Amino acid sequence: MRNEHRWGIGRVVLSEFETRGTVMTAPPALMPGSRRMVIYADGAFSPLDAKTGVCLVRFVPDEVVAVIDSTRAPSTVEEALGFGGAIPIVPSLEKALRFRPNSLVIGMAPKGGMLPGGAYDVIKRSIENGLHIISGMHQFLGDDSILSSMARDNGVLIWDVRKVPRDLGVSSGMGCSSCSVVMTVGSDCNSGKMTAALEIFSGLVAAGIDASFAATGQTGIMITGRGICIDRVVSDFIGGATETLVRESCRGKDVVLLEGQGSILHPGYIGVTMGMIGGALPHAFILCHQPTRKVIRKFTIKIPPLDRLIELYENAIAGIKGIPVIAIALNTFDMNDGDALKEIESARATTGLPVDDPVRFGTDVIVGAVKDFLGRSE
Amino acid sequence: MRNEHRWGIGRVVLSEFETRGTVMTAPPALMPGSRRMVIYADGAFSPLDAKTGVCLVRFVPDEVVAVIDSTRAPSTVEEALGFGGAIPIVPSLEKALRFRPNSLVIGMAPKGGMLPGGAYDVIKRSIENGLHIISGMHQFLGDDSILSSMARDNGVLIWDVRKVPRDLGVSSGMGCSSCSVVMTVGSDCNSGKMTAALEIFSGLVAAGIDASFAATGQTGIMITGRGICIDRVVSDFIGGATETLVRESCRGKDVVLLEGQGSILHPGYIGVTMGMIGGALPHAFILCHQPTRKVIRKFTIKIPPLDRLIELYENAIAGIKGIPVIAIALNTFDMNDGDALKEIESARATTGLPVDDPVRFGTDVIVGAVKDFLGRSE
Repeated sequence: MRNEHRWGIGRVVLSEFETRGTVMTAPPALMPGSRRMVIYADGAFSPLDAKTGVCLVRFVPDEVVAVIDSTRAPSTVEEALGFGGAIPIVPSLEKALRFRPNSLVIGMAPKGGMLPGGAYDVIKRSIENGLHIISGMHQFLGDDSILSSMARDNGVLIWDVRKVPRDLGVSSGMGCSSCSVVMTVGSDCNSGKMTAALEIFSGLVAAGIDASFAATGQTGIMITGRGICIDRVVSDFIGGATETLVRESCRGKDVVLLEGQGSILHPGYIGVTMGMIGGALPHAFILCHQPTRKVIRKFTIKIPPLDRLIELYENAIAGIKGIPVIAIALNTFDMNDGDALKEIESARATTGLPVDDPVRFGTDVIVGAVKDFLGRSE
Repeated sequence: MRNEHRWGIGRVVLSEFETRGTVMTAPPALMPGSRRMVIYADGAFSPLDAKTGVCLVRFVPDEVVAVIDSTRAPSTVEEALGFGGAIPIVPSLEKALRFRPNSLVIGMAPKGGMLPGGAYDVIKRSIENGLHIISGMHQFLGDDSILSSMARDNGVLIWDVRKVPRDLGVSSGMGCSSCSVVMTVGSDCNSGKMTAALEIFSGLVAAGIDASFAATGQTGIMITGRGICIDRVVSDFIGGATETLVRESCRGKDVVLLEGQGSILHPGYIGVTMGMIGGALPHAFILCHQPTRKVIRKFTIKIPPLDRLIELYENAIAGIKGIPVIAIALNTFDMNDGDALKEIESARATTGLPVDDPVRFGTDVIVGAVKDFLGRSE
């Protein structure tokens, strides 16, 4: 694990945690840097079913003290995921308490964002044990009268990460003229848009580029401490919320890495994807794709070949503007090195674009593509 | 005015007012048929600035007793709009009270849906005078503690038409297999999508087709008494809410006329437009356009030629499915008959599709196109 490097992300972003306009920030006690989180992902601690928990382990491993998953305990995160080191997987909250957590994170991200069964009782016992609660569910835990009164009595916070600013509006249609906006888009949900954006952001900063990362989902906001959960805003304001976030993130920067949501191929989420594109009016896309996924997850829609997918995104808002795809981030977590290299080479040959898996092989190739694009845009 | 015909719409829809699943319905006291509404549109009673008020006058004129607009009073709706008959335009609430209204409607639909200045005081005085309040603002009047306590004291209702069901979810991606879904889409907001859908629905019913109308905006819900205000739902659930509404509207019907929202050309609203298309997975589109509008209203984006606009919509969700545009409804309210006919002929020649203005020249042409499409789909 490149913990030092990962921590770099937290430090770079930490300077931006103050409340700014209408972007949400973490409560002071739960700002990145000093948390001791236990991740609740009972029966679900895998990259697809516990995206939130797995990404916290990937990006802020030093803040994760344990994972609760009775179906995988006793074990370690390394054994379950192939990374994450010795972070223990334990069967229960009681076993996790010995690692002195200060907060419990709901680590699953189920479709629709409703609390998984069994979690409610664990949350109550966590509050009784003095843990803050961090949740990205659509169902706000702070609105639950029992939990909120328990939290008051025990002096802990409930951070509903999906809560959005009150004063949003319709976008201006002007986009951002003071810096370049590069947005990650995907062939599906869970295809690696947030991970790629964070990795590339980190790579750009390491290369001396003045970049920022704009978190648009609950996991990115938990990791960086700020952002707007776009899939939670009133649908009239998808564009306006995205525009606000981009503008707040771009101040004094050369480039904003905007975390995309959903997919142009997903019947349920295409509105969020397209609304974000309309609001951000990004200058370029980075396309994220998991090569082994042939069909939209939990649906029957086929994922087309990459060149067709690029065409769809480049023309996504063709009535407003064209947006180039400048690189492809493949998510090869379920392949071996040899097969991953073959997929990367094949995608490069088919599309003529820079292609890499930024998690497996580093961000040099895609950071290079972004730098080239910034050079051309000047 | 074809009042008898207009009233037909109310009667056809009235049978469906019972609460069904997660579709919102009007409170009993404000169901279409027996209302006596005064429309508040001070300084704004025109088709573009008071869409809600103007459409109520068009579709349920017998339920509108007066319009408040101090900049146009004293006058009649006929003088202001060219239709609407002798409905008086008065300068104040006090002048309107002589027409024995039972409710006040906020008749403007400003961008962003916030209450226009001056309206708050008129609402308070309306409540004191025993009027129910009907509002389609994003800002819920029932959440205002002063207004809600006044409403309780005076025994009146506040109907926030934009309130949406609580139990929405993500769409299934299956669309509707039991009937045909025909959705109106537009070159811009305020381009006539709701009006065209209601007129065509009415024309289909008159032609003996078992059709229903699915209202997706505040005005359509006020007119018909049921629907879901899609631009108000949490953005993750745009598709799910649309799917629910379509399925509830199609029971036992041959065709659902689905009112579209926003436009594929509008940076701020494209997310709602696309999310609805993904959720409804409609079988066909009817394209609505105002020929004199060359640029998106209040923005700088040019509206392309009709054949290009058709191409954009037919490929809107090309990664999921193609959707044919089967007819064009032109909104020629600001043209004379001769120019309107020329525009219709020109659009027909350019696109090869059936084209008409269903308000000015009736719905025969477009109803014929829908019947042909239903025949081909069987």
